[in-house]
Amino acid sequence: MGLIVQKFGGSSVANAERVRNVARIVTDCYRAGNQVVVVVSAQGDTTDDLIAKAAEINTRASKREMDMLLAAGEQISISLLAMAIEAEHCPVVSLLGWQAGFVTNSTYGSARIRRVDTVRVKSALDNNNIVVVAGFQGLNRRNDITTLGRGGSDTSAVALAAALHADRCQIFTDVEGVYTADPRKVPGAVKLKEITYDEMLELATLGAQVLNNRSVEMAKKYNVELEVLSSMKRAPGTVVREVTRMEKMLLRGVTKDANIARISVVGVPDTPGIAFKIFSVLAAKNINVDVILQSIGRKGTKDITFTTDGDNGQTAVEVLKSSIAEVADKTIVCDTNVAKVSVVGAGMETHPGTAAKMFEALYEINVNIQMIATSEIKISVIIDAADADKAVEAIHAKFFPVVE
Amino acid sequence: MGLIVQKFGGSSVANAERVRNVARIVTDCYRAGNQVVVVVSAQGDTTDDLIAKAAEINTRASKREMDMLLAAGEQISISLLAMAIEAEHCPVVSLLGWQAGFVTNSTYGSARIRRVDTVRVKSALDNNNIVVVAGFQGLNRRNDITTLGRGGSDTSAVALAAALHADRCQIFTDVEGVYTADPRKVPGAVKLKEITYDEMLELATLGAQVLNNRSVEMAKKYNVELEVLSSMKRAPGTVVREVTRMEKMLLRGVTKDANIARISVVGVPDTPGIAFKIFSVLAAKNINVDVILQSIGRKGTKDITFTTDGDNGQTAVEVLKSSIAEVADKTIVCDTNVAKVSVVGAGMETHPGTAAKMFEALYEINVNIQMIATSEIKISVIIDAADADKAVEAIHAKFFPVVE
Repeated sequence: MGLIVQKFGGSSVANAERVRNVARIVTDCYRAGNQVVVVVSAQGDTTDDLIAKAAEINTRASKREMDMLLAAGEQISISLLAMAIEAEHCPVVSLLGWQAGFVTNSTYGSARIRRVDTVRVKSALDNNNIVVVAGFQGLNRRNDITTLGRGGSDTSAVALAAALHADRCQIFTDVEGVYTADPRKVPGAVKLKEITYDEMLELATLGAQVLNNRSVEMAKKYNVELEVLSSMKRAPGTVVREVTRMEKMLLRGVTKDANIARISVVGVPDTPGIAFKIFSVLAAKNINVDVILQSIGRKGTKDITFTTDGDNGQTAVEVLKSSIAEVADKTIVCDTNVAKVSVVGAGMETHPGTAAKMFEALYEINVNIQMIATSEIKISVIIDAADADKAVEAIHAKFFPVVE
Repeated sequence: MGLIVQKFGGSSVANAERVRNVARIVTDCYRAGNQVVVVVSAQGDTTDDLIAKAAEINTRASKREMDMLLAAGEQISISLLAMAIEAEHCPVVSLLGWQAGFVTNSTYGSARIRRVDTVRVKSALDNNNIVVVAGFQGLNRRNDITTLGRGGSDTSAVALAAALHADRCQIFTDVEGVYTADPRKVPGAVKLKEITYDEMLELATLGAQVLNNRSVEMAKKYNVELEVLSSMKRAPGTVVREVTRMEKMLLRGVTKDANIARISVVGVPDTPGIAFKIFSVLAAKNINVDVILQSIGRKGTKDITFTTDGDNGQTAVEVLKSSIAEVADKTIVCDTNVAKVSVVGAGMETHPGTAAKMFEALYEINVNIQMIATSEIKISVIIDAADADKAVEAIHAKFFPVVE
């Protein structure tokens, strides 16, 4: 019994049958004695369909008008879900982003939430209503509709849970929780009961696309307890929260990110400032850099290697060539045929054996490690893309031996 | 040069090509030096599609949620039209009903406009923007979305034109204006240059479905000059306004309404109060009565005959049978095989020859008149449905002889 925020993505409400399914989940939670606030995305392909409609008319439409257009998507899904809840004979009221008090800045298309004025949601809850709120959208100071960008509904749900001091924020998805590896690929993958925010962040960054990063960061900041669970199968999911006792090494998972590019700038002068120049130029172009490695080259030169998103690889090469005199004539190699494989787990820094265990697994299947990067809760290696899947499987088997 | 409100219905913005066409009409008006406010309906079948989506989920959904759902339709059309105007390189801003200041009562599904707060529209106009406003929708005192019901976008346009003191409100449709008869059926039908509000109201009531009645009534009340014209063909339409000099008899048109039922209650006691009972019972059931005729029957009885919408005929009979003791055992005849043919024109009351001329035309083609009703600007006859089309043609030929 408590105040629960439940969030359902577009695929969970894609058609009438699924909307009814969501209505049953919501009303079961309500009938169990909880106050329930539901945050929904637009149905299935609605957003893409609307974008296609716009493109037919103007491929360079203003972002303000795009946001006005796209916000219609959740308006449709909240009212349909409310109708399905009415059909289950529970009192319900649907609210648009602005009605639910989402105040954002004016960055149309990827607005940031400034605050959530919960007066109306609270009053609807006090009147025993289930409250269905449009995710992804808000209102700026000019009283214009804004949208939060991709994955924005997760952020809406967490922000609302934080503002309402909800007991839990349940994120319903098409997976049953967070696994130690991709369960479709690694047979021994295990669903985690619990995970910390930092671990979840690392997993998301590493390509386990269960939760939007912004929403996890916000949940951590406001200490919102998250649960990731399936809208199709009724079963407990994975709870994301701050776990206080952490003496034990807790490996959370093995992930793979195949969409990366490894870029090597070979033989740059070994003088101060060159690394600064390279990475500030990339930052100015909004190219995120992940792993960085610097090695001594021949005759007073050095080689700088880094990884970035696969899509940005070629752009990064061009930017560096055209902007920095010192590298313009140097060899810059871009290799997109690589993957990053990582193990994630809080408490890793106090268990030095983890890295050795991981490397051992790779050695046993004869996989060459190109780069290594470590953080307090993560060890990543860059390897040949062709080796990635078997590497994940081998590492997972090493850390989570199948018991039976 | 002035402030023009332009209204485009759903078929005028049904697809990308038509949205672009509307954008060209709007931007031409703007470039000619006018301030332009555009009111749009939802695209083509959007509203019906949304209603079908709702029916799949809940056939008895609350009206509040239906309004929330349907209002998404205009949100899509205003943003798309704004994008098309952007593509024509004119400054533009789209506004939802509530952003444009439409405050309504809380009768979801057929809300009445209480007032229009034009601050935001005026400020957008002052900044040289074309303003695109969602028709059909508003906001009630609870900050909930409402819709105005069928034809609501016409009403939105007229209300906005009244509140802004616009110089003209142009209603773009799929016809080129108001004709003296249905131009698809009567070859000699002539487009009228000008018509009064009352004439327009009579024409609309009589089945010439060019303009929504509520919007004409509102235009009359606030003295908004209307123009009905085509969105497909660039040509002047019909202007609706108060014409002051009216010495001359001005016949405006001949119309036909085939969707009526004639109901006769035969042999009721000739006592006071019986007519009152009949028509108050019908009013309580929201059954509108049009023409009423009372005649003396046999032996201290009378017959009461009236017409109503064709759809209501059978209901009317049942209501009367079950509610009024005096008529329960009487013969009640419902005939839907009738039509009403009318001539409309201001100044008719000072030209008694009009009725004679009309009846002469019917006599010449051997059409029997069942009932007659007259108002200051209209003469209607109820005749056999099978005679209706040739009656319209004959009357039209009598009043508008083809010149060539």
